[in-house]
Amino acid sequence: MREVLKTITLLTDFGLKDPYVSTMKGVILSTFPDVRIVDVTHEVDPHDVREGAFLVEEYYRYFEKGTIHVSVVDPTVGSDRKPIVFSKAGYFFIGPDNGLFTLILDDVTPVFAIENKRYMRKEISSTFHGRDIFAPAAAYLASGVRLSMFGSVVQKPVRLPGLYPVIEENVLKGEVVRFDGFGNAITNISGVIIQDFVQERPFTITLRGESFQTIYRSYYEKETTCLIGSAGYLEFGYFKGNLKERLDLRKGDRVTVRAL
Amino acid sequence: MREVLKTITLLTDFGLKDPYVSTMKGVILSTFPDVRIVDVTHEVDPHDVREGAFLVEEYYRYFEKGTIHVSVVDPTVGSDRKPIVFSKAGYFFIGPDNGLFTLILDDVTPVFAIENKRYMRKEISSTFHGRDIFAPAAAYLASGVRLSMFGSVVQKPVRLPGLYPVIEENVLKGEVVRFDGFGNAITNISGVIIQDFVQERPFTITLRGESFQTIYRSYYEKETTCLIGSAGYLEFGYFKGNLKERLDLRKGDRVTVRAL
Amino acid sequence: MREVLKTITLLTDFGLKDPYVSTMKGVILSTFPDVRIVDVTHEVDPHDVREGAFLVEEYYRYFEKGTIHVSVVDPTVGSDRKPIVFSKAGYFFIGPDNGLFTLILDDVTPVFAIENKRYMRKEISSTFHGRDIFAPAAAYLASGVRLSMFGSVVQKPVRLPGLYPVIEENVLKGEVVRFDGFGNAITNISGVIIQDFVQERPFTITLRGESFQTIYRSYYEKETTCLIGSAGYLEFGYFKGNLKERLDLRKGDRVTVRAL
Repeated sequence: MREVLKTITLLTDFGLKDPYVSTMKGVILSTFPDVRIVDVTHEVDPHDVREGAFLVEEYYRYFEKGTIHVSVVDPTVGSDRKPIVFSKAGYFFIGPDNGLFTLILDDVTPVFAIENKRYMRKEISSTFHGRDIFAPAAAYLASGVRLSMFGSVVQKPVRLPGLYPVIEENVLKGEVVRFDGFGNAITNISGVIIQDFVQERPFTITLRGESFQTIYRSYYEKETTCLIGSAGYLEFGYFKGNLKERLDLRKGDRVTVRAL
Repeated sequence: MREVLKTITLLTDFGLKDPYVSTMKGVILSTFPDVRIVDVTHEVDPHDVREGAFLVEEYYRYFEKGTIHVSVVDPTVGSDRKPIVFSKAGYFFIGPDNGLFTLILDDVTPVFAIENKRYMRKEISSTFHGRDIFAPAAAYLASGVRLSMFGSVVQKPVRLPGLYPVIEENVLKGEVVRFDGFGNAITNISGVIIQDFVQERPFTITLRGESFQTIYRSYYEKETTCLIGSAGYLEFGYFKGNLKERLDLRKGDRVTVRAL
Repeated sequence: MREVLKTITLLTDFGLKDPYVSTMKGVILSTFPDVRIVDVTHEVDPHDVREGAFLVEEYYRYFEKGTIHVSVVDPTVGSDRKPIVFSKAGYFFIGPDNGLFTLILDDVTPVFAIENKRYMRKEISSTFHGRDIFAPAAAYLASGVRLSMFGSVVQKPVRLPGLYPVIEENVLKGEVVRFDGFGNAITNISGVIIQDFVQERPFTITLRGESFQTIYRSYYEKETTCLIGSAGYLEFGYFKGNLKERLDLRKGDRVTVRAL
């Protein structure tokens, strides 16, 4: 029987034009070849740790337990921000301690700094820790190194503020946090939160000039729709078209849910 | 001796910015890890089933027999359009029954609806069948599930009209159906059809203001060329430049072949 | 114990919209399945052999020894430019003999033409040697075919002129050769050359209107920085922004290093 390869996923803001991502893959494979590498995306908006924070929460649980998720959106590489590794719900996470993992961290997850030089490349650049620290850490972790071998516990990992929606004056307020490739506008308001807030009451959802009294199920049902997207968050779309372009939407655009 | 991994290919219009494609990969690998996944493209023009139909016909035969080709261009996801699976010429195909497979289907290919919930994810969203139906179907198919286990036979799978060139008043008429990354304009007129139509006669091929009495072999031979591209179809190119931009070409631009 | 798969990397200017890259992968896997394929980039500027030449030098050494690096930027495909294969420093390289490998070739590397039809696809198109010659060559090389089996030695492989910086009137002169996805401007002046030229003297580095008396270590240290990038070359960046767009930089922009 074939032994199952461990999966390492990569999410970065490096783009695919440059050899940065493949260099990380080369380092992983020449450190520990018995892995499978899956690209998540390399098109996080450059330097946008906040967008990255929303993305890292979306895909990890669809992989097999034991998968190692490497995420690198790291504008302050070379500063004293720490490289970290931790595990949660049977998955492993590696990346910079700059808030990228805010939505995954909880109060009981122990986070380890990557400090042990044995698990890094010999020369550490001050511009590319993806290659010199995060890629080798993923490879060593896949090879069986235990979390506590990487370094000491980070007492207060960085958390970004303002990621969650709020209720003010009986209005649920959130925002557009990213757009997908179709131009659908994805918010930080989960379907669960809407349900808890609205319960059985009639409601109105607004984004720019648009308002909705219904949450649809699929994009084809109406020209402009709001629905709970596949990751569980409220989103807005335009059937066979691009809502972002039609309404000239931006990240940060306000979304409100009012109930009577 | 190593057992050969089965290959699953993915073609979508999802783009690579979002975790949609990697989520599909996670579902495949956590359902049946003993596969190899190859991306074909995720940049089909959004919602453009017709462009997808031309693309799915181009690459499948270059893979080893037994390869499972998953194609998802699916604007009406969540409606009553069926998910389907079929095999042809030793290859397997999975995707929505919306015409995407028009150029592959023939009168003798039995097409099965994917209906058996055993081979889907437990919860089926109404917006992302790539994750909930097509990815698991591919994994189960790779694991050995037979086609007839997925569901009943679809009597009349959807076929898109107007994909083929026509001969009218002794003129062979086709169109530009897509552009490649170099700006080459690829048509729906195959070299075989031109040969059958022209035979030994002199001929003129026209696109916009350009006309050609010769079919070239390579792009370097002349500034603007028409040639039979690597997939067997008439195409137009500009040496070391971008013909699409130079002539402001669009999908649907008319192409004619006249013979004396 | 698992046998380690041989890695084949792919660098092209094909883009990811079209099935060209996946067709190459299909050919490799159906010729010799026991390999692992890693994409480096498919976004080399179309037809830009010079940009490709700078890129191929950057990543190869990060992979495990024995890796086969396939590079295809090939505007004159179908002409008499030769397909070549060679090895250097334990790595293998495959691609067109058009200067793409200028920075890797040295005087002692024997370069072989790929001539033996046994290691090509049966039908050779005049537009897509990636599929018909380079992909099968990579697969056969991975399967154990020796370099000298592919064909005769190429006496003078093509070298591009003007890739290296020069010293004129006591000024070290180079240029911006490419931009990465962050808009950082990467030059052809290596950190080693600067060190040799400057030694202990004070110096001034200029790009457009900007001048620097210091080489920084990381992007976060100052708004506009010059530093030795992760591949060892002088580059210019803008913290959390895009320097290319800010200064409207172009490939070929002059960069000078003066020392007192």
